[in-house]
Amino acid sequence: MPITILVLYDPKGLSIESLALAAGQGVIGSGIGEPRVITIDEATRDDLLATDGLLLGSPNWSGITGTMKLWLDEQGDLWEEGELAGKPAGVFTTGSGRHSGLEMTLLQLTHWALACGMVVVGIPWSERMRTSASYYGATSVGGVTEDDLAQARELGARVATIAAKLASG
Amino acid sequence: MPITILVLYDPKGLSIESLALAAGQGVIGSGIGEPRVITIDEATRDDLLATDGLLLGSPNWSGITGTMKLWLDEQGDLWEEGELAGKPAGVFTTGSGRHSGLEMTLLQLTHWALACGMVVVGIPWSERMRTSASYYGATSVGGVTEDDLAQARELGARVATIAAKLASG
Amino acid sequence: MPITILVLYDPKGLSIESLALAAGQGVIGSGIGEPRVITIDEATRDDLLATDGLLLGSPNWSGITGTMKLWLDEQGDLWEEGELAGKPAGVFTTGSGRHSGLEMTLLQLTHWALACGMVVVGIPWSERMRTSASYYGATSVGGVTEDDLAQARELGARVATIAAKLASG
Amino acid sequence: MPITILVLYDPKGLSIESLALAAGQGVIGSGIGEPRVITIDEATRDDLLATDGLLLGSPNWSGITGTMKLWLDEQGDLWEEGELAGKPAGVFTTGSGRHSGLEMTLLQLTHWALACGMVVVGIPWSERMRTSASYYGATSVGGVTEDDLAQARELGARVATIAAKLASG
Repeated sequence: MPITILVLYDPKGLSIESLALAAGQGVIGSGIGEPRVITIDEATRDDLLATDGLLLGSPNWSGITGTMKLWLDEQGDLWEEGELAGKPAGVFTTGSGRHSGLEMTLLQLTHWALACGMVVVGIPWSERMRTSASYYGATSVGGVTEDDLAQARELGARVATIAAKLASG
Repeated sequence: MPITILVLYDPKGLSIESLALAAGQGVIGSGIGEPRVITIDEATRDDLLATDGLLLGSPNWSGITGTMKLWLDEQGDLWEEGELAGKPAGVFTTGSGRHSGLEMTLLQLTHWALACGMVVVGIPWSERMRTSASYYGATSVGGVTEDDLAQARELGARVATIAAKLASG
Repeated sequence: MPITILVLYDPKGLSIESLALAAGQGVIGSGIGEPRVITIDEATRDDLLATDGLLLGSPNWSGITGTMKLWLDEQGDLWEEGELAGKPAGVFTTGSGRHSGLEMTLLQLTHWALACGMVVVGIPWSERMRTSASYYGATSVGGVTEDDLAQARELGARVATIAAKLASG
Repeated sequence: MPITILVLYDPKGLSIESLALAAGQGVIGSGIGEPRVITIDEATRDDLLATDGLLLGSPNWSGITGTMKLWLDEQGDLWEEGELAGKPAGVFTTGSGRHSGLEMTLLQLTHWALACGMVVVGIPWSERMRTSASYYGATSVGGVTEDDLAQARELGARVATIAAKLASG
C-alpha cells in the first residue's frame, strides 16, 4: 500500500501554493507515496492523523501566520499524546525579503514538528542552494523560480522516501 | 513626563498573568515609568503605538500561541511602517516542561520585536538564573516561584530604564 | 550486521560525559546497534564518516563550545559533499542555568546536522520532560539526574532505531 | 568625549571585511562615535571591555566559525561577570547560499551578545531588505552589493546612536 504524505499549508500569499504543489509533485515523483495537498481552511485533525509524513508550509509573516498557528493549536494535545511521533516532517515558506525571517519561520515550523516528536527532514546542499531553499526547507522570495520548485520537489521526495522507511518494520 | 511601558500578554495559562504583573511592578520600581498591563483580549493598536517600550508575553504552546500571533498579525504592517522601530522590547513565557520550548517561544517573541525594528532587552546572568529566567527573558515552569517574579521585575525595570534613555535626546 | 552509532562530544564539563555514556547505553539497549562513544580530542574524520547515525553533545557555553565547533569545521566540507546526508542525528547538552541557552545550544548542534543533510531526531514529550530534556535533545542542569539519564538513553535508542530503518532498503 | 564602537570579526572570507569596514563607516557617519575595526587575530580582551558598543561578524560556516567562538570563549566569563551588560550589539555575516544558515549565524552571534547581557540592535525593514540584510543584522551572499554595504552602514550608525544614548545618564 502506498504511503500518504499530507502537504498542509496556509494559502495566504500566492507563491506558497506553488511550493505546496511542487512538494506534492515530489511525493508523486518518488514513486512510493501519494500526496494530499490541502490548505488549513479545509484540513481536519483526521487528515493530520492519517498521514505517514507531513509537509508543512506557512508564509513568512515575521514568523508563522497566526491563522496557521491557531489551526495547529486547535488540533488538540498532539505534543502530549504523541500521535505524530516518529513520522517525518519537512517545511516550506515564502516571503518578500531575502533574509527577512524566512529561516526563522522554517525553524518555527520545525519546532512545532519536533514538539510533536516528529523526525525533521531538510534539504542538503546543492548548487541550487546558492539562490534557492535552505537546509531547513523550501523557500521562495518575491516570486517562485524554477529552482525554488525543484527544491520543493526534492523536499517532497525526501519526506516520502524517509516516511516509507520509517513506516516499515 | 514619565514614560509608559505596555505589558501585553495572552492570558491563557495562570502563571503568565503573575509574570505580567511582576514585570509591571518592575516598571514602577524603576521610578521612571508607568506600566499599562493588559491582555490581547483588551488591547488595541493604539495601545501598541502609544508605548515607549514593550513587554510581550505568551504561554509556551510549542511556540507563541495562535491567538497571540493572530492579534499581532492584525495590527497592520508594523514591520513595514516602522512605528515601533527603535523602541525597546522584553519578552516572557511560561510552560510546564523545563526545556520544552520555552527558549524558542521567547525567541519567537524576540523575532517579532526585531522584525518591527525594536531593540531587544534580555536578562543578564545572576545566581537566580540557575533556577529561573533566561538571557532571552522571564520564565516560569509549572508554577511561579519568588525568583521567577524577581526576574520578571528586573526585566520590567530594565526595559523602562532603557526606554527612558532611548526616548531622550 | 549491526549498525554503528557515533556518540561524539566535547568533554569539557563533567555531566556531558554522563549523558554521552547514557546515550550509548540507549543504543545498546535498542538491540540493533553498537555505540562508539568518543570525545573530540580522540575522534577523527573517519569516525564521523563510518557512522550510521550520530549523537552530538556540547556543554552549553553560550552556544556550542569553540573547541567543538573548531573540530567540526576541520572535518572538511561535509555540508558540500554530503557524506552524512540522510543519516539521523540527535543532540545533547549540559549547563548550569535552567534556561541559560540550553535550547539554543541544542539548536546550534541541530543546525550543523541539518547543514550536513542529516535527519534530526529529538525526544517526544513524556512526564519526564517536566524536569528533564527537551524536544530538541537530552539535557542536564547543574548535575545529572536519573531522569536526565533516562532521556539520554531514550534519545540513543531512537537514533539507533531510526538509523537502522534509514540504512535499510 | 566620543563613544567608541568595536567592530570585531573573523576575517576568513573576503566579503566579511567589506561589511566590517562599512559598519565602521556607519559609525563615523553617525557623527557621534569612532569605530575600532579589528579582527579576532589582533583583538584582545581589553578591546572588548573598552567599547561602548559592539559590531560582531562571522562568516556563515554552518553557524559561527569555530575560530570566532574559540576567541569569544577565551575572553573569560563575560556572561557571569557582566562587563558588557547593558551595552548595545549588532551582528553581521556573509555566505554563499541565500538561506544557507545566514539567519542562524546571525542568531548565534545575537545569542552570545544576549548571554553577556547586551542590548540587541538589528536593522528595521526598508525596500533594501528585499535583496539585502536581515532584521537580525547585515549580510552578503556570494559577493558584496552596494545595498549590502548600505545596510551595514545603517547598522553601524544605529549601534553608535543607541550606544551614545545608553552611555548617557
